Parts: sequence; C-alpha cells; structure tokens
Amino acid sequence: MKRVLLTGAGGNLGRALRKTLAGWADEIRLSDIAPIDDLNEGETFVQCDLGDYEAVMSLVEGCDGIIHLGGISVENTFDSILNGNIKGAYNVYEACRRHRAGRVLFASSNHVIGYHERETCLDADSAMRPDSLYGVSKGFGELLARYYWDKFGVESALVRIGSCFDKPANRRMLSTWMSVDDFTDLIKRVFAADRLGCPVVYGVSDNPTKWWDNTKVSYLGWNPKDSSAVFENEPHILEEVVDPNDPAVRYQGGGFAAAGHFED
Amino acid sequence: MKRVLLTGAGGNLGRALRKTLAGWADEIRLSDIAPIDDLNEGETFVQCDLGDYEAVMSLVEGCDGIIHLGGISVENTFDSILNGNIKGAYNVYEACRRHRAGRVLFASSNHVIGYHERETCLDADSAMRPDSLYGVSKGFGELLARYYWDKFGVESALVRIGSCFDKPANRRMLSTWMSVDDFTDLIKRVFAADRLGCPVVYGVSDNPTKWWDNTKVSYLGWNPKDSSAVFENEPHILEEVVDPNDPAVRYQGGGFAAAGHFED
Amino acid sequence: MKRVLLTGAGGNLGRALRKTLAGWADEIRLSDIAPIDDLNEGETFVQCDLGDYEAVMSLVEGCDGIIHLGGISVENTFDSILNGNIKGAYNVYEACRRHRAGRVLFASSNHVIGYHERETCLDADSAMRPDSLYGVSKGFGELLARYYWDKFGVESALVRIGSCFDKPANRRMLSTWMSVDDFTDLIKRVFAADRLGCPVVYGVSDNPTKWWDNTKVSYLGWNPKDSSAVFENEPHILEEVVDPNDPAVRYQGGGFAAAGHFED
Amino acid sequence: MKRVLLTGAGGNLGRALRKTLAGWADEIRLSDIAPIDDLNEGETFVQCDLGDYEAVMSLVEGCDGIIHLGGISVENTFDSILNGNIKGAYNVYEACRRHRAGRVLFASSNHVIGYHERETCLDADSAMRPDSLYGVSKGFGELLARYYWDKFGVESALVRIGSCFDKPANRRMLSTWMSVDDFTDLIKRVFAADRLGCPVVYGVSDNPTKWWDNTKVSYLGWNPKDSSAVFENEPHILEEVVDPNDPAVRYQGGGFAAAGHFED
Amino acid sequence: MKRVLLTGAGGNLGRALRKTLAGWADEIRLSDIAPIDDLNEGETFVQCDLGDYEAVMSLVEGCDGIIHLGGISVENTFDSILNGNIKGAYNVYEACRRHRAGRVLFASSNHVIGYHERETCLDADSAMRPDSLYGVSKGFGELLARYYWDKFGVESALVRIGSCFDKPANRRMLSTWMSVDDFTDLIKRVFAADRLGCPVVYGVSDNPTKWWDNTKVSYLGWNPKDSSAVFENEPHILEEVVDPNDPAVRYQGGGFAAAGHFED
Amino acid sequence: MKRVLLTGAGGNLGRALRKTLAGWADEIRLSDIAPIDDLNEGETFVQCDLGDYEAVMSLVEGCDGIIHLGGISVENTFDSILNGNIKGAYNVYEACRRHRAGRVLFASSNHVIGYHERETCLDADSAMRPDSLYGVSKGFGELLARYYWDKFGVESALVRIGSCFDKPANRRMLSTWMSVDDFTDLIKRVFAADRLGCPVVYGVSDNPTKWWDNTKVSYLGWNPKDSSAVFENEPHILEEVVDPNDPAVRYQGGGFAAAGHFED
Repeated sequence: MKRVLLTGAGGNLGRALRKTLAGWADEIRLSDIAPIDDLNEGETFVQCDLGDYEAVMSLVEGCDGIIHLGGISVENTFDSILNGNIKGAYNVYEACRRHRAGRVLFASSNHVIGYHERETCLDADSAMRPDSLYGVSKGFGELLARYYWDKFGVESALVRIGSCFDKPANRRMLSTWMSVDDFTDLIKRVFAADRLGCPVVYGVSDNPTKWWDNTKVSYLGWNPKDSSAVFENEPHILEEVVDPNDPAVRYQGGGFAAAGHFED
Repeated sequence: MKRVLLTGAGGNLGRALRKTLAGWADEIRLSDIAPIDDLNEGETFVQCDLGDYEAVMSLVEGCDGIIHLGGISVENTFDSILNGNIKGAYNVYEACRRHRAGRVLFASSNHVIGYHERETCLDADSAMRPDSLYGVSKGFGELLARYYWDKFGVESALVRIGSCFDKPANRRMLSTWMSVDDFTDLIKRVFAADRLGCPVVYGVSDNPTKWWDNTKVSYLGWNPKDSSAVFENEPHILEEVVDPNDPAVRYQGGGFAAAGHFED
Repeated sequence: MKRVLLTGAGGNLGRALRKTLAGWADEIRLSDIAPIDDLNEGETFVQCDLGDYEAVMSLVEGCDGIIHLGGISVENTFDSILNGNIKGAYNVYEACRRHRAGRVLFASSNHVIGYHERETCLDADSAMRPDSLYGVSKGFGELLARYYWDKFGVESALVRIGSCFDKPANRRMLSTWMSVDDFTDLIKRVFAADRLGCPVVYGVSDNPTKWWDNTKVSYLGWNPKDSSAVFENEPHILEEVVDPNDPAVRYQGGGFAAAGHFED
Repeated sequence: MKRVLLTGAGGNLGRALRKTLAGWADEIRLSDIAPIDDLNEGETFVQCDLGDYEAVMSLVEGCDGIIHLGGISVENTFDSILNGNIKGAYNVYEACRRHRAGRVLFASSNHVIGYHERETCLDADSAMRPDSLYGVSKGFGELLARYYWDKFGVESALVRIGSCFDKPANRRMLSTWMSVDDFTDLIKRVFAADRLGCPVVYGVSDNPTKWWDNTKVSYLGWNPKDSSAVFENEPHILEEVVDPNDPAVRYQGGGFAAAGHFED
Repeated sequence: MKRVLLTGAGGNLGRALRKTLAGWADEIRLSDIAPIDDLNEGETFVQCDLGDYEAVMSLVEGCDGIIHLGGISVENTFDSILNGNIKGAYNVYEACRRHRAGRVLFASSNHVIGYHERETCLDADSAMRPDSLYGVSKGFGELLARYYWDKFGVESALVRIGSCFDKPANRRMLSTWMSVDDFTDLIKRVFAADRLGCPVVYGVSDNPTKWWDNTKVSYLGWNPKDSSAVFENEPHILEEVVDPNDPAVRYQGGGFAAAGHFED
Repeated sequence: MKRVLLTGAGGNLGRALRKTLAGWADEIRLSDIAPIDDLNEGETFVQCDLGDYEAVMSLVEGCDGIIHLGGISVENTFDSILNGNIKGAYNVYEACRRHRAGRVLFASSNHVIGYHERETCLDADSAMRPDSLYGVSKGFGELLARYYWDKFGVESALVRIGSCFDKPANRRMLSTWMSVDDFTDLIKRVFAADRLGCPVVYGVSDNPTKWWDNTKVSYLGWNPKDSSAVFENEPHILEEVVDPNDPAVRYQGGGFAAAGHFED
C-alpha cells in the first residue's frame, strides 16, 4: 500500500491501529474531527469533519485504500449520527468513486444485527435488525457500500465489529470481543486479497462462545488467533450477575438493545 | 380509521389515492411540501417540509395511521434525498413513537432491490441491493422502521412499490405495474389487519410476468385483482425494442440501475 | 374403499363427516367412547376407549383405511391427554401395523405449531412449536406416524387441522377455517392418491388471509374450494376487538397459546 | 421471428407443434433424421443427422431461434444416445455460438430428475438425479446450455418436459401431462421475453396434482391453461391399478426409474 | 450451583457422571428407580419412579438445576416407555414449572433422528425421524421442553446423545461416541451459560467422522476435546465387517433402525 | 483392498499417486493410453483407450475398487473430450455394473463449478456451472455416477479436484491447492468408509483461503493436513499481479473461465 487513509484515527480504536499498522503502508493519512499532534514516521494528519463534502473530497484524493472508522461510534442524537455516519459515509464513498481511491474497509457494527437473539447463529446473509439509531446508520453505510460496488465497482469489506478493546469489559464481550491484533490481520487480508467484492465480515476473535459464522467469507483467509478464553476468570467477569430474561442478555446488541430512546 | 395522515399528498400517487380512499377514514390529513387547495370533504391539509423536525411532530400528532408517501421519489442529489427521505423518515417514525400514532404504511420502492437480475425471483427475505441513492434512502427507511418495530412496537408495512401509474409506460412495467385500485386495497388491508408486525410487501398487481413473490405475507390477505395483461398490445409496448444485455433490461431496477451518478 | 374406520365419530367433526362421507365406502365403521345410536345405512358402530389396547386391536382389524379423529381435541389434563392421544395414537398405529390396515389420515392440529407468530408463513418443514399439552400430544402422534412409515411402511396424512366448523367463530378463524366440504375432499384425495407417503398437510380452506403454505404437498391434488371471505362481514366478526399485542393474536395458536397451565 | 429451426420435426411432438406454430414465424425450418415431405406454407425442410457436425453448422446458419426437440427421446443404447443427444446437443450449441443464431428452447426432460420421490416438490434448483442414460444425456445438454450462457451469452430455456401428448396415457401422466397448447404458449413466451437468461422450466400443464413448482421462473409469464382433470375419469385411468411401493410409482421418472439397464 | 438433581443416577451414564461432577455443586441429589447406597460427600439420594407424579414433585422441589437422564434408555415395550419417558418427562417439566427449579439438561437421543441416512449431515433444525418407540418418546420430551420454554420460560438443553461410553463398542460409534469428559464439560457449559433458551445439541465428541453439526449452538461455547480416533485400531473395530446396504449401516440409528417391532 | 484399478496412471497425478499408494492394495492395476514400463512391485499395467468399450470391460473385471483419473484433464477439442471423458466415463461405470467392481473414486474437477464467483462459498449442493467443455464433461461424469448409484447401487466419491500439484503454480492455487498427501488420505478414506453413497467432495487442502465447504461430507472423516500457507511467500506468488476484474480472478475456474472457445 502506498497511501492509506485512516478516518477516526483519534478514537480508541484508531489509536490502537496506528500502532499495529505502523510500517504497513508507505504513508498512513490520519484524519479526525479533533487534532492529532503525536504523529509518527509514515503518518500524516488532516483534520476533517466527515460531514463536510469538500473536505472529504480533498481528504480521500490520492489514497489507494481507506479504513473508515470515523463518525459516531455509539448511540447518540439523530443529528450527530446524521452528520458523522450518514453524510460521512456518503462523502467517503462519493470521494472514492470520484478519485478512484481503491478499497474501503468500512467499520460497520454488530449493532446492525443487535435485535437478533443470542441463540440465533448469524452469517453474512442474516437480516439486518438494528438495535439503535447508531445501528441503523451503520446499516445505511452497508447499503451505500453495496450500491457503490454494484454500480461503480468500489470494493468494500463491511466489518461488523463486535467489541474491539484490550479485553472484554463484561460477560457479553466474551462472545463479541475482537483483539486489536486480529483486527489488524483482517485489515491486511482485506487489502491483500486478489479480489474483495463487497463481503459482510463479522469482526470477532476465535472466542469460545460464538454468535456469528464467517464461513461464507473464508475466501478472505482471515483466521483469528486470539480468544476471550484467557479472560474468563477475571474478577469482573466472574462477579457479573446476569438475568437471561434481561433484554441486554436476550439480544445480541446487549445494552444498545435494552436502552430506550437516546436522550441528551 | 379516525384520522389518517397522507404525506406526499400532492404527488401523482397521492392525488390518485385521495380519490380512491375518499370516505375511508373520518379525516384524511394531507401533507405536502407544496400547497394543496382543492380539498374535498373529509380532507384537511398541513403544508410541511418533512425534513423539519418540529413541523413533523405537529403533523403526526393526533393521527391513528400514516400513509407515508412523502419525500423524493426518484433519483436526485444526495442533499435532496437526505432532507426528504433520511431526515423525513426519521422525523415521521420519531413522531409516531412520541405520539403513539398507530401504524405506518411506508412507501418503499423496488429500487431497494434494483440490482437483482430479472431472472431472480425475490421474496421478503431477499437481500437489499439498491440501484440508486434513492434506493439506498428507501433501504434506510426500511431499517429505521424495523428498529422502531423491534424497540418501540411501531407496526409498519414496508411496501416496495413497483410502478404505480394508470398504465405501464414501457415493457418493464408490464412486470412492475401496480394499479391504484390494488394499492388502495393493500392500504385498507394493512390498516385492518388484526396484527401487522413489520412485513416487506412487494407492491405489484397480478401481472402475467412476475419478479416478486408475496407468499410470505399471505397473512395480510392482499390478493391483487388487476393485471398488466390488458396493456400488452398497446402500441408503445409492442413497438419498444429491448436488448437483453442492456443493464436497464438485465436488472430489476431498470433505468435506475443503468444510470450513472446523478448530475444536477 | 371397502371398510373405513372413523374414530371420534361422536364429536362435532365426526358427525359432520358422517354426512359428507355417506356412500363413499362400502362400510364406515364408527367408533367413539360414547354410544352412537343413530346409524345410517353403510355405517356400523363399535364403542371403544382408544386407550384400551385390546379394544383398539379389534376395532382396526379388517379396515382398509382409518380416519383418526378420536381422542381429546382441546387442552385438558395430562392424564386425559395421555389416555386418549398418547396411548390412543400408539394403539391405532400398532393395530395398523399388526393388521395391515391401510392408510391413516391422522387428525393433527395447528396447535402443534401454535407458538409461531402470525407473520411467519409456515410449510410442511416448519419446526413444531406446540402451544399446549394437547399440541404436544398431537406432535407425538406425528412422530409416531413418521416412525411407522419409516420402519413399517404405514402411510399417513398428518393433517394439521385449523378450525373445522360450519363457520369461523371469531376473527382468528378467518385465517384458520376449513370447511367440512374441503376436509371431505381432502380425505378422499388422501385415500385415492397413488402414493401417499407421510406428508404434513395444513387443513385450511382457501381463505383470503393465509398462514400456511401447502405447496410442498401439491402432489396430493387437494385444492380447497371454500373461503372464509363470505363471513368477513358477519356481526360477530366485525364487532370483535383485537389487540395486536395480545398473545392470542400474536401467536398462531390463538387462545391456546395465551392460556396458562390447564386447571381442572 | 424470422426463421426458426425446429429439430426433431418428424417426431410426434414435432408434428404437433408444426400445427400449433403455423404462421408464428416467417419461416419454420424443419429438420429430422428421416425425410419429411408434407411441407406447409412457411415451412422448409433440411434432412440432418444431428451427430453430423458440418451438417448442423449449415442447418443452424441463418436462424434466429431454435426449438431443439431432436435426438433420442426415450431410453436407448448409449451409442444412440451419444450420437443424437450428446454430439447433437454440442453441435447445436456450437452452431449457435458460431452463427449467433439467437435463443434456444432446449427440450430437456423430467427424466433428468426422475429419481426424486413423488412426495418431493421440485423447483428449478433441485438436484439433477437422472433415471436413465437418456436422462443423463439431457442433463448433459442442460450443463452445456448453461456453459454457453455463462461464457458466450447464448440464452436458453431448459424445458423439462413432462408428458406432452394428446392426453395422459396412464395415471402417472395426470401429474406430468403438458398439453400441446400449453407448450406452444411456452415456446412463444420464451422467444418473446425481453430477457431470457438460462432458466430451468418444468414443462407441465395446470394439473390438479403437481410435483414441480415453476414459481422461480414467473418472470417468463407462462401460465398454463389446460389441466389433466378432464381425463381423470377416463376408463384407462380409473382401471389402472397401482402399488405405492412400485419403483415406477415411488419415483417421479415412473417406468424409466423402474427399468433396469437397457438391452437391445 | 447449589442443588442439582441427577435423575437416572443408577444407570451407567449416571454412575460415570457422579464421578466427573463431584464437587461441582453444593449438593447433587441423585434419584433412581432402584436403590443407590454408595453415596459420596455432597450427594443425597431419593428413590423415585419418574412415572409417579407426586413423587417427582417432591423430588424436584428445592433444586436449581436438573440433569434428566432417567427413564428407559433403549427400545422397550410401549408401557415401559410410557411410564418412564412420557409420564416421566411430563412430571419433571411440570415440577420445574411449579417449583421454579431452574434449567434442565434433557438427555435426548440420536434415536430421535435415527432414520436419516449416514450421508446426511444434520443440524439443530433437521426434521425428527425417530427409529424406535424409544426415539419417539425422546421426541415427545423435546416437544414438551419446547412447550415449557415457549409458554413458561423453562430453559432446557436438548442433548441428542450419541454413544456415551468409555469407548466405542463398534464401528458405528466411531462417529457417535461422546466421552464422559466431553459430556461433563457440556453439562457445566449448559448451566453456566448467561442465557440458554431451548437449544438442540448433538452430544458427540470431536470424532474424525461426523454426522452432526453443532455450529448453530456455538453460543454455548462447548468445544469437545476427545476423539474416537484413538480407538480406530482396536481389534474389535478393525475386525468388524460391515455391509453398506445393511439398514444398521445405512441409517444413523444403527441397530435401532434395523430392528423390527420390540417383542418382550 | 485386493486389486485397485488406477486409470490415467501415466499422467502427473497418476505418477504421484503410484508412490503414495504403494503397498496400500495387494495389486494396483495401472492403465493409461500410453505405455508405462517402470512398474514397481504390486503394480500391473494394462494399456487401454478408455473410449474402447470392450477394452474397458476387460480392464475393470476383477477389480474391487477404481480410482478413475483417466481421460482428458484440461480443455481440448470436443472430439477428444467425447472419447476420453464421455465414452470413457460410461465405459468405466458400465463395466463396474457388469463386473460388480466395487467403489469408484471419480476424479471430477473444480471446473464443474468454475463459473461461480470467488466470493461465493460453495458446498456439495451448489449448482453446477461448468467453465469449459472439459468441465461439462466432468459434470456428465457426475450425473452418470449418480445414476449408477440410484439405479444400480454403485458407490462413488465425486471429487472435485482443485489443483493437485507439488505446489501452487500461481496465486489462484493458494485457494485451490490439494497436496498429494491429502489426496492420498482422501482416497484411503473413501475406500475404507463403512458406507460411501455418492457424495460430492471438494478436493482441496486446508488452505488459509477457502472457496469450498466440505462440512456436508464430514461423515467421511477426511481432514486435510496440508496448507498452501507455506508457499505464500514464494517469489512467483509474491510477484504475480492480479486484477480483481479479470474474469480469471473473478470466477473460481480461473483461466478456464476466462478462455474463449478452444481452438486446436
């Protein structure tokens, strides 16, 4: 890769990937709505509101790959989501089309399918059932990506990220956790694949308990190495008390599904 | 029905339904972005930009059913679609939640699935493959409706309208045509059903050639009566020359799938 | 047919079929736990508790077809269901095996699948989800029939009867109603088929609203003629008020699904 | 249609179609391995062994549609089948490719799927399970057609003909019968379709008993009008005695499935 | 776990589990129809005929988990099966409902699906095709469990046990064998799961040859460790001669499927 | 195994298997159209044109297992394919029937499904979409094998071989490569299975990138051990430049799908 754009580079996940992707591309162009001033060698930075059409056009130009983490990453007001995730996704894809910017790894979310029950094993063809406005906006992004693929040939991996943190913060994440290393390996696979198309990939490590089956995208060659098993006996996991009838336990989206309408 | 809201009442389809639905509800509250001044008995009118949150809250309050045709109905700029179809859909559903406004018939579109090939028989579970930004926005509306159903219990019929005109304008519409009478009957069925849930319904008459199978929503009891067969021998149909390899013929979305990026 | 056994002949459905099947077979052997004394020409009667093994062996001997309606037909205590529907079904099938008594039409019930939601279109392969101990017992009968088919070659039609009455008693039955004439036609088709096997058939007329799809058993040639449409405007139908969130409306089993544990 | 080639024009089905297709095309070019000398207006004749490559190249040149009935139509020696059905099919498709001869209606056969049991409802995606060398050769033809479609864009309708005779000759044909009129209508639909692709169509009338479901090819608009119901009470039907365990009754291929290896 | 009930504790499998589950719960309450007098620390014993309603009510009271192995475990007379497996299952589930006794691990059996052929890969949604009255009774238990889940929220794991012995006794068991250790791990997973629902689980180790696919219940996190591979070269395995056309080899149920009607 | 026939023994794959199968059977009868004169102990040789009926009858007689690699193994003229693969397959299967020669391992090919896109995960039930006349002929062989199984009980494994070479020759083969050792193990499994039936098996090692899912034939117990991962960094792999829109990259058949009509 020559120049890869990493949007949302200032967030937790963005910061983690800056480390693991160091040296992978000649240049990693970081963007975020907030300033980033601790640039490493091989990194450049462009401050950018993804809802700003012209700014995004400039941001994307000259890139040959995009890791699109940017936008709002949890439930929020519709206005915030509209700007960051709806306008933002459109601006990024439209810029890819105009500037022939190569592949996109779109950071979608498990909250696109959060209203399926835990006992339901999902795969790439499972129906979208978002659990939040945030989840709806990620579903919008997936549809948009599919449209840019079908009409304009822009390839995208639609990665429905589970929970990409250092470790599972609660019992639910024993099933949804993806290590940063596994995600890094997925990113490299996506950009190295001879042909990508527009697959749905569940972003999850090789945990003991699984809700999602990636068999249909075996052509990508992504075989996660990490497992949440090493965290099963941590105190905060052992001590958590769960009720199987709690909507946060019943539905895959967890607390997002259990929550009511977002109030500022 | 006591008071039903009909959005987009000033459009072609809205005008047609005003005739066929006359007398069906105690009051039909019409709305449109443009003025309507030829009100009939039982009709009231509220001029409203669907992208205006507060205006939509007022518009929906007091209604016990919504036929949501409003917004942009063909491909357009993203900004237009964003206001009319993205913000508009959110405002309508959020108003339904806040005002417990009863069921929604959401006018979705065949352009949500327009990139499937004609030889593919679709049903309610077929993947969304939008053929336009317009189609993407209708897919957004369907996801939003599903979310409001799963979380808040708002019932919606997601009607993927084929071509609802007086008669098929071209050969493609021999397969996609829905008569206004059949649509009217569907509307009545949707609001009369003992339980609606959130079904996907293909809005199409009983034409000789069919791309879509409504078997999965047989519980609604909608059995279209009209057929495009009566138009098969009209001159504009007989004289149209088609190429099976033309994208407009290959894909279900027709010209929407064949078009490039919308330019003002 | 030479001699057909009709169990449960004293019940409402049995009485109705005695009329419509008159003359169809050389002899119709009626049985019931209670006496029947109004025999018509071509009918004989054997009083029989279906839970009595030896009595059922005698009852079935010499028959070349069995319409098995007998047993308990609504929710009841487990002891009653055990005797009439569990022991009863076993005794009937074991008698068929021992006496090579020909085909069986087993009166199963929609309550075998009563916990599916109304919006779910079922077919012969849908999972059993009984809504009552009665439904569980009918599921047992279906499994038993399948076993006697796989191991001993006893052919059975497993007819999941909806609501076989003169007319729909409530709004739910607009979807589940089967006319006695349609059921009679089904019975004749089942015994006339060149090969029956062991199919699941939903016993329902050609109603406007449908929950069940019999396409997979089209080889039987059963095409119901009647429809509940003629009852849609009867006062008891028009006046019934339903709540879509009532379990009796949500689930296909209606009141059976909504009821708690049966108490004497 | 300007010039349509009808191979196998001397067979029973060919002779029947010559009548019903009269006047449909400017010219119908007949071919057969045996002479035909009763030509009607609009008909021409070319005697041709379909196994003869050069002869078939000449035969096909200048045609804009092909109804390919020719070859062996029942079980026979492998050598006969090899010449008529394997070489024959190759020669016809290769000629279409070389001469850009337009669409092909390939007369496939129910014997391609003859080892499915009668209780199994098939559709266009059901696995091929041939019941004879003849059936295997028709499966070869379907694969070849699919190959010419995928690689060279030659459109074909793969019509798995049931039993196309004046009337059903036995009880099995009550389920497999296709009237000549219905077949004629199918032929016209196939050549008139705006886009054909390469569909599998079961060639069967609207009989009361059905083994095959054409829902997936509803886009063709073929809705058979005739039914074997009118023959159900003919003496040869009523008097036929069948055993449900006879392989000829158990399997859809009937006598073809029940027969052993073909002996001269 | 505080107090877990283990029914059928006197059988081979029960005895094995007493060892591997020692110390897992504060108390393991054993029950059997025959006396058990070698109690270990943490074990209590209640002699009980599972067909005795009142006895089972007492047995279950105070337990917060049930491992239900009890009843008849091979083919037998219907009367025996009726008492142990039909009445027994009802009594246990009804006791769970009345006493809110927590989760149930129901020892179902591969004989529920024993009439599928070996070449058919089954999963949790495969149709039940019992191979014996015993298999039918286990199917009844599964339906009953589903009913108690759908109506009363009683969670159950329906474990279709293959062959849980020290080692495979014959070649068939190379595919069906489950080690006691793997079963023990499954039991612990079932009771530790944050949410169980009512899944079907195939009880089988990680053998080289597999007939059953547990992918759909990956949410349980059960990953068997043992394999029958270590027994492949034992003399009784190497020396066994099998005929692929023997019903005991053709069908998954083995000898159960091949046997005729059980005779005392 | 006493005497196993290996057809096509003179080809690359045949030569490789002669080494790995040495000592497996009492006798390995080699055949090829060209002479083989370096026979090892336990090997015999019969020169044979597979298109010669009588020669094949003699060749097969006395064998109790057949590994059928013979015929044409890449695209060629139809005449060549007709003789080697069409006549050849018929002759082999007919000889098996006549001489009750035991099981067949039929070397089918990935080119039977070569027109599926790479992003499509296939299994044993995926539709055949051949990418060449060669692929069509292998599909013919599969249909023939299925016919001989359904009618005459001849068991066959239909192995859709990916790329069985020492190492992957190009990037595509990273996904399609099967090591000779893995193939050897598959061969032994096929002939050792207690029951084989007529399964479709994808012949591919445990490569990182996978297009084919063999879960449905897990009953065979074949678990490939090798992986193309060890070749990922070889220069010819690293240096190959691919275009995702090249038909040879888009379709699973690679160059076979991309090629035009074969010209001598």
